[in-house]
Amino acid sequence: MKIAVDAMGGDLAPQAIVEGVIQASSELPSEARIVLIGRENTILDIFRQHNFVPTNIDIVHAEDVIEMGEHPTKALSQKPNSSIAVGFKLLKEKEIDIFCSAGNTGAMHVGALFSIKAIEGILRPAIAGLVPQVGGGHAVMLDIGANADCKPEVLAQFGEMGSLFAQYTFQLEKPRVALMNIGEEEQKGSLTSQATYPLLKQNKRINFIGNIEGKDLFTNKADVIVTDGFTGNILFKLGESLYEIARKREINDEFIDKTNYESIGGSPIIGVNGNVMIAHGISSPLAIRNMIGWAYKQVKSKAYLHIAQALN
Amino acid sequence: MKIAVDAMGGDLAPQAIVEGVIQASSELPSEARIVLIGRENTILDIFRQHNFVPTNIDIVHAEDVIEMGEHPTKALSQKPNSSIAVGFKLLKEKEIDIFCSAGNTGAMHVGALFSIKAIEGILRPAIAGLVPQVGGGHAVMLDIGANADCKPEVLAQFGEMGSLFAQYTFQLEKPRVALMNIGEEEQKGSLTSQATYPLLKQNKRINFIGNIEGKDLFTNKADVIVTDGFTGNILFKLGESLYEIARKREINDEFIDKTNYESIGGSPIIGVNGNVMIAHGISSPLAIRNMIGWAYKQVKSKAYLHIAQALN
Repeated sequence: MKIAVDAMGGDLAPQAIVEGVIQASSELPSEARIVLIGRENTILDIFRQHNFVPTNIDIVHAEDVIEMGEHPTKALSQKPNSSIAVGFKLLKEKEIDIFCSAGNTGAMHVGALFSIKAIEGILRPAIAGLVPQVGGGHAVMLDIGANADCKPEVLAQFGEMGSLFAQYTFQLEKPRVALMNIGEEEQKGSLTSQATYPLLKQNKRINFIGNIEGKDLFTNKADVIVTDGFTGNILFKLGESLYEIARKREINDEFIDKTNYESIGGSPIIGVNGNVMIAHGISSPLAIRNMIGWAYKQVKSKAYLHIAQALN
Repeated sequence: MKIAVDAMGGDLAPQAIVEGVIQASSELPSEARIVLIGRENTILDIFRQHNFVPTNIDIVHAEDVIEMGEHPTKALSQKPNSSIAVGFKLLKEKEIDIFCSAGNTGAMHVGALFSIKAIEGILRPAIAGLVPQVGGGHAVMLDIGANADCKPEVLAQFGEMGSLFAQYTFQLEKPRVALMNIGEEEQKGSLTSQATYPLLKQNKRINFIGNIEGKDLFTNKADVIVTDGFTGNILFKLGESLYEIARKREINDEFIDKTNYESIGGSPIIGVNGNVMIAHGISSPLAIRNMIGWAYKQVKSKAYLHIAQALN
């Protein structure tokens, strides 16, 4: 298994990224290797700073960098030697099993759509957020930012994609799928959520448990939380902010610690023909280290193949 | 000043409501009286249970009750002697200065629209949530549930209504108005939020500071948070859930305590010709007591008159 990491993407790249990879490398099962994509000399310099001699890390040189503010589509076509463009090329050619980056989120999303492409039949791939639950474990919430406006059919499909993801990544037999809404009753909500409810209810391939509300986000009511990328992004970022608030107020709590973005490190893109993981722009070494752990689980789960099979 | 409270509305009514009123009555400035609307004998029984002799409470008898599950419009027309219908009749006739209820939210919203009516020029009145901030104080977020689907012009008007509310209720000279969105840049967001941004920016009567993100909900970035009733309701309920999560985990923190719905107790309807406050269905005596404190502040602020003046 080859887990590729963009060394150049992220506000603290390449330093924090390479340091996270160094930390992760000693914990990785022997079947896995890390592929660092970026400026080879820069990466080797950071290895040397830490007197680190890699045994399970390969470097693929990429001269260019897509900056955070760049226009995704333009940047990808103008910079074929950027770490993100090279990563997707390798992913498409199946030289790597997953591509992870803390760089330009738009470029990661567009790169996935243009290279490995959406699974046939998938209306819109989604970015899925892993949301810690007070009882332990995580729910998967989708979308958290790729699609700000979603039609009911798109949301309904998120329910099915999310269910398959949860089934294979969390190893749950019948993941509980819920629609994030403003009331429990079927007829509640926006026009879009009212139209989405029956589509989810009719789908016999998922275990739809109905609507949940904002208060249920962390309370282990659902394994899969269906929402558009507007509400989902706002909820997800609010969730991540709790750790920062608690830290400043010197609150120590195991659950709140898990809301720290660093404890997960990455959000997968679901609905594309391969494994892609997007990390936070401000990713620290710890975040990258934990992201690599989740990336390993995601490759093992083969969730994207199961999604493709389910649709054909 | 007469602060009217629906004795019969709420999951724990009338017991919890009347007990909250008893608690509040001793704290209220001498210029204010409480008007309890509901079944007189039931209310007097609860007074007797507590050996309570009211000095600043009047009772207005109302025989009927609109239950939580009833259809708002039907219930209001079929039950003119319900506590909610009687309350709005008194409010319309200016016999009371504010009407507060923990009962059927839909009936409270429809009752306000049918009796005192929307202020001329207001496209959609909104339910405004008071959101505690980590630095102290509150932001006002609107809408939190009355309008699940909002057009850009409606959202832009929320910004102006909210600004006037914050100016007069929080006594701020130039409240900071922000749009809840999924990125800081102007062009980010859903189609609706992209169209709302320039409308808020062009409005010279408000101090628009741009987009904020989910992570900024509690962090004192804005005094007025503009959002539709779908996202706003989900965010508000997630915020309220933090206290419950913290309580179960034995986390004691002053800020988290303020996220307890009981610490505010009520959410005003903004944009109507009068003062209306909606309390949580599960309102406890403490919640009712605190709601009455906010109700007093709201009447004093005359915010609804300032909103009406600003539009004419």
